[in-house]
Amino acid sequence: MAQPNHDVTATAGDVLGTYLRSQATAFLRALRLHDESGPSGGNGVYTADGSDATRGLRGAARRISGSLATFRPVTETGWADSLRTELVWLSATLADEHAYGARLTRLMDALHRLSGAPSDTPEVPSPRNSAGALTVGSARAGALLERQLTLARTRAHSAGLQALGSSRFHAVADAVAVLASEVPLDPVAAAGSVADVLVPLSALAKSRLDAAVSALPLSRASHPYNADALIDDSHQDAPWHEVRRLLRVHRYAQEALGADITRLTAAGEALDRHRDAAEAAAASATAARTPRIAPTTAYALGVLHADQRHDVEAARFAFHHIWLRTPAALPS
Amino acid sequence: MAQPNHDVTATAGDVLGTYLRSQATAFLRALRLHDESGPSGGNGVYTADGSDATRGLRGAARRISGSLATFRPVTETGWADSLRTELVWLSATLADEHAYGARLTRLMDALHRLSGAPSDTPEVPSPRNSAGALTVGSARAGALLERQLTLARTRAHSAGLQALGSSRFHAVADAVAVLASEVPLDPVAAAGSVADVLVPLSALAKSRLDAAVSALPLSRASHPYNADALIDDSHQDAPWHEVRRLLRVHRYAQEALGADITRLTAAGEALDRHRDAAEAAAASATAARTPRIAPTTAYALGVLHADQRHDVEAARFAFHHIWLRTPAALPS
Repeated sequence: MAQPNHDVTATAGDVLGTYLRSQATAFLRALRLHDESGPSGGNGVYTADGSDATRGLRGAARRISGSLATFRPVTETGWADSLRTELVWLSATLADEHAYGARLTRLMDALHRLSGAPSDTPEVPSPRNSAGALTVGSARAGALLERQLTLARTRAHSAGLQALGSSRFHAVADAVAVLASEVPLDPVAAAGSVADVLVPLSALAKSRLDAAVSALPLSRASHPYNADALIDDSHQDAPWHEVRRLLRVHRYAQEALGADITRLTAAGEALDRHRDAAEAAAASATAARTPRIAPTTAYALGVLHADQRHDVEAARFAFHHIWLRTPAALPS
Repeated sequence: MAQPNHDVTATAGDVLGTYLRSQATAFLRALRLHDESGPSGGNGVYTADGSDATRGLRGAARRISGSLATFRPVTETGWADSLRTELVWLSATLADEHAYGARLTRLMDALHRLSGAPSDTPEVPSPRNSAGALTVGSARAGALLERQLTLARTRAHSAGLQALGSSRFHAVADAVAVLASEVPLDPVAAAGSVADVLVPLSALAKSRLDAAVSALPLSRASHPYNADALIDDSHQDAPWHEVRRLLRVHRYAQEALGADITRLTAAGEALDRHRDAAEAAAASATAARTPRIAPTTAYALGVLHADQRHDVEAARFAFHHIWLRTPAALPS
């Protein structure tokens, strides 16, 4: 890990305050962008600007709540705890719409790829001349997934708009506006040095992450094609999702300290892929439980499920390499 | 490749003759074992001895026909060509019964593994308490595959018995019996040295193999989780099957020359796994086209298909490592 590049004379309060203020500003900027992207109230129209704005809101909300958790003793804890709870609610609420959209795109791309169609083909794959069971069913499977995930996405969009129009959200936005100008800090802890106060707190976040990583079956994941992820065990993903969450908290703390987060970002992307593939596989399994579907549709959904679980395994393999190889290659 | 370890004063005819006689003797021994394993005529009873005997017959038949192809100019070619044709017919006929049995075992093992059942569980997986779509359908999928592959195996068993009782087979056995005592050789070529006659002919078999290997997408296969094998393209396996065939011919030639075939055997096993997984995936796709199956059965067959294609990809990855890594690690 590179050394923090902040001013060595800065106090813990200076560094944390600067980070929180910049994230609060980013939050307010995204909110303004969202409001400007038009009154798309409940009509299910998604604009690119609106989507960027929501992503910006989520990113800033996650960074603020993560930093408030890691560096809690440096803040006014009562204030920090309540804002954190509200930001977690907000980012979770806003995440769903994007997640359903991304899941549909991922599954459609996979259906195209599995059908052997050129990757630039638009829309749902159409049956080809060669009559494979997958090809026959993949168009129907695609249509079914599109129907189910578009419905879920539309509902999530409405829920998001409703949240952004609620008095609960306005209270959050007001609190973030305060944060943008003045961060409520604990006067004693904030006056300490970065090395004495922030570094030990970020080390605690790191040790929680390390403990969770050590519980992962990493040596198993290091063997390509171990076929573990295909086993029908609903509990096997949870430790990976937990590492993803702790890695994100650790990354935001390092970001606040001005450290190099290149490797953490890459590791996080592998775990994002793990989560996305796991949820896409689950969506395929759910679609297969739709009553009265044709066997060819169910067959295509089974292939798609296994393909996505295959990608879960690939993401574990990628995480293993990023996590263990890169530091091993550096002088310790 | 290790150097041949035969006597340097031996002629081409001596070395080839020794190999062919030993294989002919193995053929006759297996035939005797088969006859002793009892008159299981058409009743579908498979004895372990009978199965070993058939495997022995196939192995010897393949080695004799392979050597006759590679070293054709050293033999009486008219005789060699006709015996080779008959041995190819025989080994193909006898291979089916074993192949169907092995395919069923492979698919049942995969269903057990995918269901998360302990690997020592006997028979078809039974539905577990947790109601996954795969678990619901996997027992039915297993029963369907068992029905279809057991029927195919029984037919292949009858066809094998019929072949072994035919006058065509008796003529083959007579020809092999002649071979066991005296190999019909071309007097001029057989009198040449091993280095002048057999080595160039085996190099020709090697160059055919090398050309076929160079046509494989090996660098693609070297990246784990490339997901290529899952693409619905019925032509993608053919070059690998061709390499498997040529590798076997090359291996038998090296065996005849007394060379070390450890690496060739390992590479061949990877390609056997490739072929077995590809055929198991095809059997799963075929079963999914059975009329009036339940969607849950079709879904389980889809997962199973993708799992086996995943193993096809794993076998390509393994072949790549055996083929390219091992020689690269040795001083050239």
